[in-house]
Amino acid sequence: MSSSPESDLPLDGTPLTAFPSPDLPSPLPQSPVLRAAYRAKAAANELAPLPRTPKDEALLAIADALVVRTREIVEANAEDVERAREAGTSESIIDRLTLNRERVAAIAADVRHVAGLPDPVGEVVRGSTLPNGLDLRQVRVPLGVVGIIYEARPNVTVDAAALCLKSGNAVLLRGSSSAYSSNRKLVEVLRDAVGGAGLPADCIQLVPGESRESVTELMRARGMVDVLIPRGGAALIRNVVENSTVPVIETGTGNCHVYVDAETDLAMAVEILVNSKASRPSVCNAAETLLVHKDVADAFVPLALDALAEAGVTVHADDRVLAYAPDSKATVVPATVEDWETEYLSYDIAAGIVDSLEAAVAHIRLWSSGHTEAIVTTSQSAARRFTQLVDATTVAVNASTRFTDGGQFGFGAEIGISTQKLHARGPMGLPELTSTKYIVTGDGHVRG
Amino acid sequence: MSSSPESDLPLDGTPLTAFPSPDLPSPLPQSPVLRAAYRAKAAANELAPLPRTPKDEALLAIADALVVRTREIVEANAEDVERAREAGTSESIIDRLTLNRERVAAIAADVRHVAGLPDPVGEVVRGSTLPNGLDLRQVRVPLGVVGIIYEARPNVTVDAAALCLKSGNAVLLRGSSSAYSSNRKLVEVLRDAVGGAGLPADCIQLVPGESRESVTELMRARGMVDVLIPRGGAALIRNVVENSTVPVIETGTGNCHVYVDAETDLAMAVEILVNSKASRPSVCNAAETLLVHKDVADAFVPLALDALAEAGVTVHADDRVLAYAPDSKATVVPATVEDWETEYLSYDIAAGIVDSLEAAVAHIRLWSSGHTEAIVTTSQSAARRFTQLVDATTVAVNASTRFTDGGQFGFGAEIGISTQKLHARGPMGLPELTSTKYIVTGDGHVRG
Repeated sequence: MSSSPESDLPLDGTPLTAFPSPDLPSPLPQSPVLRAAYRAKAAANELAPLPRTPKDEALLAIADALVVRTREIVEANAEDVERAREAGTSESIIDRLTLNRERVAAIAADVRHVAGLPDPVGEVVRGSTLPNGLDLRQVRVPLGVVGIIYEARPNVTVDAAALCLKSGNAVLLRGSSSAYSSNRKLVEVLRDAVGGAGLPADCIQLVPGESRESVTELMRARGMVDVLIPRGGAALIRNVVENSTVPVIETGTGNCHVYVDAETDLAMAVEILVNSKASRPSVCNAAETLLVHKDVADAFVPLALDALAEAGVTVHADDRVLAYAPDSKATVVPATVEDWETEYLSYDIAAGIVDSLEAAVAHIRLWSSGHTEAIVTTSQSAARRFTQLVDATTVAVNASTRFTDGGQFGFGAEIGISTQKLHARGPMGLPELTSTKYIVTGDGHVRG
Repeated sequence: MSSSPESDLPLDGTPLTAFPSPDLPSPLPQSPVLRAAYRAKAAANELAPLPRTPKDEALLAIADALVVRTREIVEANAEDVERAREAGTSESIIDRLTLNRERVAAIAADVRHVAGLPDPVGEVVRGSTLPNGLDLRQVRVPLGVVGIIYEARPNVTVDAAALCLKSGNAVLLRGSSSAYSSNRKLVEVLRDAVGGAGLPADCIQLVPGESRESVTELMRARGMVDVLIPRGGAALIRNVVENSTVPVIETGTGNCHVYVDAETDLAMAVEILVNSKASRPSVCNAAETLLVHKDVADAFVPLALDALAEAGVTVHADDRVLAYAPDSKATVVPATVEDWETEYLSYDIAAGIVDSLEAAVAHIRLWSSGHTEAIVTTSQSAARRFTQLVDATTVAVNASTRFTDGGQFGFGAEIGISTQKLHARGPMGLPELTSTKYIVTGDGHVRG
């Protein structure tokens, strides 16, 4: 099976019946990125009205193809890995880049799992009969064309494509150029499988070109691309957020706090702190700052410092926490203002003592990225006040910050964690990849 | 009662405990727009946890104050009207600008109506107990600070402020400079009433300055303003959409179509066409294009042309519709390509004949702004196919396009009609002025 050919564009004046926007560029787009977006929009129009079964069949065909064509995929990936080694890339990044037989099998299993999830498209979100007899229904529909910009993790290529296909969207994938060989091969495998299952292969496309200009073009393709989702580091996300005219869903930056209240269970607080910080420091739902109520500091801080030391965590402490350092085994260094805003993503944590719950909330308002904030307390009123006052995607009461995750929340899948307030906030599953449309049905109703 | 003084900003290094973002400008903002946004954010933090009663009391205080202080308001408005007349402004725009006793009373009644609507904040959107025993709830919370940019309609000042207050948001109002006297007085009345009711007056603010730079600053206040909603003409909306780094909800442009299917009730089709086009041509849900299936053209087009002539509508016709013109009373002119993309907002309509339902859908995909598309048909399968294939905020079956409206849909209020796919699509009521947050409650849960 070879890669399906790209459909030809009508560049000669043929009516563009699939083109969705009155912002029709004239002459027609010559840019490879805009041509890809054009083909994606046409494919999205074909996908949108489809029921669940053909989409699931295509997903199962993808899973099968990934397994059958594992050797090709691993070989293409080896080229990227070799280039990365030659460039002196760190082992942790090379590890995330590398595909082998087991990892490809795991990716295929994830695709089968997505096929088994409910289809969000067609769900009636709201419906009623209006006083004048009109029937009103609000139903979920695909967004259309989703652009994903991401770093050197080839598994995201398949994940994102599977979630978009399941939710009836076409996807434009712009991965890191350091994973280009892997991504090109994976997208070839996906397109072949989708085409073989009778759906338009153009619903999955790699954004052509490895240059930065291709990212810029994608960000300016308003009217052709319906949403851009950047996944990766803070610099990538900031660039997209600041320069895109296509609507963006901001993901991922997590400067998360654990606040230990005056009334607390000390052992529970230690366990939640260590789990939030050290169970996986490299992810966005890991804690980065500890705030302790002054009334519990004498009892809690020594326990916390020892537990953090045992977990290998360096503590960046304010003056009041520093005072406890001499009696502990912990590595404690003085905190600077920068520590309050740093997302370490490492075995480091900032720590400070606050005079009240309100002071903790004020600190969080000032420095938090609004991802996940936890309180450990035995006081019902403190729990209630903290959840009311703190503005974040997720507020955890007596639970680790690490639970903010689509899988943990029972969504079955996750395309990212939105840290913005519009459209989606927190872990995004399949419904977050949809919009809605109203259907109004009458029998000759006119407005008086 | 005099206008409440603006709260002072801590410009001297006092801790900014209410400041929400790590993107803290340093030195602190000197710009009046950013200072207003800063104060709005602080007020939003106070509003967010409030239950319904204090917000409703403030709304009723606003309604009372509008009535009591009508004379002041009408006098301030007279200054704007006089300037507009001197500038040779058209009577229709002056009419929209003008406030009198009756209009102020109607605006006050609208505010009382908003007070009576349910509070969206605190609604549990989704909730479950996870397999590990964690309680998960997704609850509605205010967006925070909402910026509204709008044209010379002083009623929008009060409308938008009331809806934002009801939904727990602070609002930054940037009206047209041609309504500046009216808006300044209205905002003074609103702030006095809100302050008198014990809520922070800074939750309602006029964006300082009449210059274009103040709009630009508002569009760049990412991190301080949570969403911008432009309300007004296409040029205003395009400017905001293309230049804002603050997330935008695009509203309003409506190039709406009425498609008359091969199988149809001719009298119903005529009635829906005339209502869609001519009941109020200046609004975004008015029809701008008529598409007729060729099989029904001989029967329908002559009826349609006569009915449109009677309603005073000029028809911009394609060649096939033009052929019917000599036998009708209608004013019929040849359509150019521009007619298909024009939102006339006047007694004009484009009209064409299509060979199939699919051709109508293709035409709509090419030219529509995705607002409201209507089909008139007796065929169940045609109705189903049209609603599946057409991508718009609202698809109307055997009903006028004019029903796309928050009031008509039973939402009780409307802040605008979103024509984008993210966050909100179609008429936006109070729930669309909210975001959500997840609350996770455990008893010491950590992630394994």
